[in-house]
Amino acid sequence: MRADADFEHAYAVILAGGSGTRFWPLSRRRHPKQLLDLLGGGTLLEQTASRIRSVIPAERTYVFTNELLRGEISRCLPGIPKDQIVAEPAARNTAPSIGLAAHEILRRDPDALMGVLPSDHIIRKPAKFRQVLRAACRWAATEGRSVTIGLKPTRPDTGYGYIRKGPPVGHAAGQEIYRAEKFTEKPPAATARRYLASRRYLWNGGMFIWRASTLLDNLARRQPVMARSLAQIARGGGVRARATLRRVFPRLEKISIDYALMEKISNVFVVAADIGWSDVGSWAVVYELQRKDGESNVRPRRSLCLDSQGNMVVSPRKFVVTVGVRDLVIVETDDALLVAARDRSQDVGKAVQELERQGIVHLL
Amino acid sequence: MRADADFEHAYAVILAGGSGTRFWPLSRRRHPKQLLDLLGGGTLLEQTASRIRSVIPAERTYVFTNELLRGEISRCLPGIPKDQIVAEPAARNTAPSIGLAAHEILRRDPDALMGVLPSDHIIRKPAKFRQVLRAACRWAATEGRSVTIGLKPTRPDTGYGYIRKGPPVGHAAGQEIYRAEKFTEKPPAATARRYLASRRYLWNGGMFIWRASTLLDNLARRQPVMARSLAQIARGGGVRARATLRRVFPRLEKISIDYALMEKISNVFVVAADIGWSDVGSWAVVYELQRKDGESNVRPRRSLCLDSQGNMVVSPRKFVVTVGVRDLVIVETDDALLVAARDRSQDVGKAVQELERQGIVHLL
Repeated sequence: MRADADFEHAYAVILAGGSGTRFWPLSRRRHPKQLLDLLGGGTLLEQTASRIRSVIPAERTYVFTNELLRGEISRCLPGIPKDQIVAEPAARNTAPSIGLAAHEILRRDPDALMGVLPSDHIIRKPAKFRQVLRAACRWAATEGRSVTIGLKPTRPDTGYGYIRKGPPVGHAAGQEIYRAEKFTEKPPAATARRYLASRRYLWNGGMFIWRASTLLDNLARRQPVMARSLAQIARGGGVRARATLRRVFPRLEKISIDYALMEKISNVFVVAADIGWSDVGSWAVVYELQRKDGESNVRPRRSLCLDSQGNMVVSPRKFVVTVGVRDLVIVETDDALLVAARDRSQDVGKAVQELERQGIVHLL
Repeated sequence: MRADADFEHAYAVILAGGSGTRFWPLSRRRHPKQLLDLLGGGTLLEQTASRIRSVIPAERTYVFTNELLRGEISRCLPGIPKDQIVAEPAARNTAPSIGLAAHEILRRDPDALMGVLPSDHIIRKPAKFRQVLRAACRWAATEGRSVTIGLKPTRPDTGYGYIRKGPPVGHAAGQEIYRAEKFTEKPPAATARRYLASRRYLWNGGMFIWRASTLLDNLARRQPVMARSLAQIARGGGVRARATLRRVFPRLEKISIDYALMEKISNVFVVAADIGWSDVGSWAVVYELQRKDGESNVRPRRSLCLDSQGNMVVSPRKFVVTVGVRDLVIVETDDALLVAARDRSQDVGKAVQELERQGIVHLL
């Protein structure tokens, strides 16, 4: 069967090198968002790996991260072979990582299809997501083109990239496939509202499927300097040849795959995915996604909220009492406590920058 | 000199049995307000004992408390002889405690003057307070009458008792002495405003000086049942005869010295004291009394307040970050965290009652 053949050559590349600050004090440099269990059901990274399992098994899953996180990620994902958890020697954004991954996978399987998946979001409809993933794999295998998973937007968010859907070009695994006409990064508010109203735009969640060989061909054409360096690493032994990797990789251009490639090439396709995606961008989003008590508080059993509404309390060990407070985020860890207005929780990162500026490194 | 003779017979009775809940989570049953260092400079109890030291030394100071607190109070006040730190076997309000104290002191010194001093307030002008205390001692010794220390009111508070000042009757130690015409407990707001405007009223801070013998004579007349029981305890050996004390004391009427005696007798005098008194009734008061940063926050060095104004942060060990919050009280201990609106901090006691109702005894 053709379908099975598609998936036999399907490899996953999970990107897990991120180091956000908006979930401080839970998130730290050595314990970033993808390693947090923000909503129950495991860390975001564990959920990313397990939700694809029935389409792409652990033995064909790679995780790209940094040297600081590799140990914890290995422990977090015991099913994935250790040599497929790759520590990059420097943070160069997604294009160099994905190029490096393509070489690794191509070395193993010349017919490899490669699904690139960030690990810092949630997908509340994992079965739906797997349908979309199968469709994208099938179309990418058949057509030899890049297939992006485009997310149905739910609000005119100015923090995301948008993909304009072209005319439908066919079906795969029960999903309609469209031509992707245009990638737009973080539009102004009015533009975002127009996009949402037009129903022709999808959010770019950074998930796409492509043949590893075709990806590298395109990279060679669009980013020849980067492609030559990546080829040098591959000739030198790839990710296992740490000396070459450490010498060459840090000098690669720091650039996202969207800027480096996706926005530059034609013949990209897109599947429209209604999969309950959220990038969980702040404590306020975590609050929205959680079950509330009768006073709209999200709080642990060991807490008491007196005349308090709309608060989120995260305190695994300590008993928390609130009196007469509204719409706060209260997060407590062994060494730090955050109390923020919920509608200011996107600014928690600024506070962390200030801690860094003041040299309070043990809290970063 | 007459003055020295007054002070030679002066004894202090510090009342330290209180068990408030409004400073939770710092205050607990075993660690109530008088044992907290809320404003620096030692616990309220330590400050109470040390501010009278040059008038009434430690060897003539008694502390009346309960069995739960006696050990910690002994450690807190190493200068005071251990057998002068008395644990009452039951909480019966102030009249029985003071009667018991009068017997103890009278046994030691038939000419004893007794200064009754609560331990749960602050006095920001201790030198001024000592002048007032000397004046009260002198007048009480000379006239043989009760002299109350009346506090100059600064607002029409409905939570205090008020004393109406009569005409001046003389001077002692440079202070004018007035007849105390009337005691009124917790007046309605309009009455309190009228009192404040009239300038004839003082707050009753529960501090008074009296000959121990005269106090007991008056108690025998006004509270004969209580007086008989106290005499029985005294005959049985006083506070050292624990068996008698344990049998008799818990059956005494639970009543304050104000209701039991002060409001019933004539010939009470009052010294008007402008001594920077505060009963420090809630976290909001602690906030008012503390030094603020440029954004009106009271906070420890190990904290960061981003776009936050008017907050008070108490966290001895943990680093605290606030983002975009106003007028909160944030208090953190090893096992509990309080986040309260500052103008609701008088309701912290309600939260503690709720903890008690829910049987969460380890936090009380």
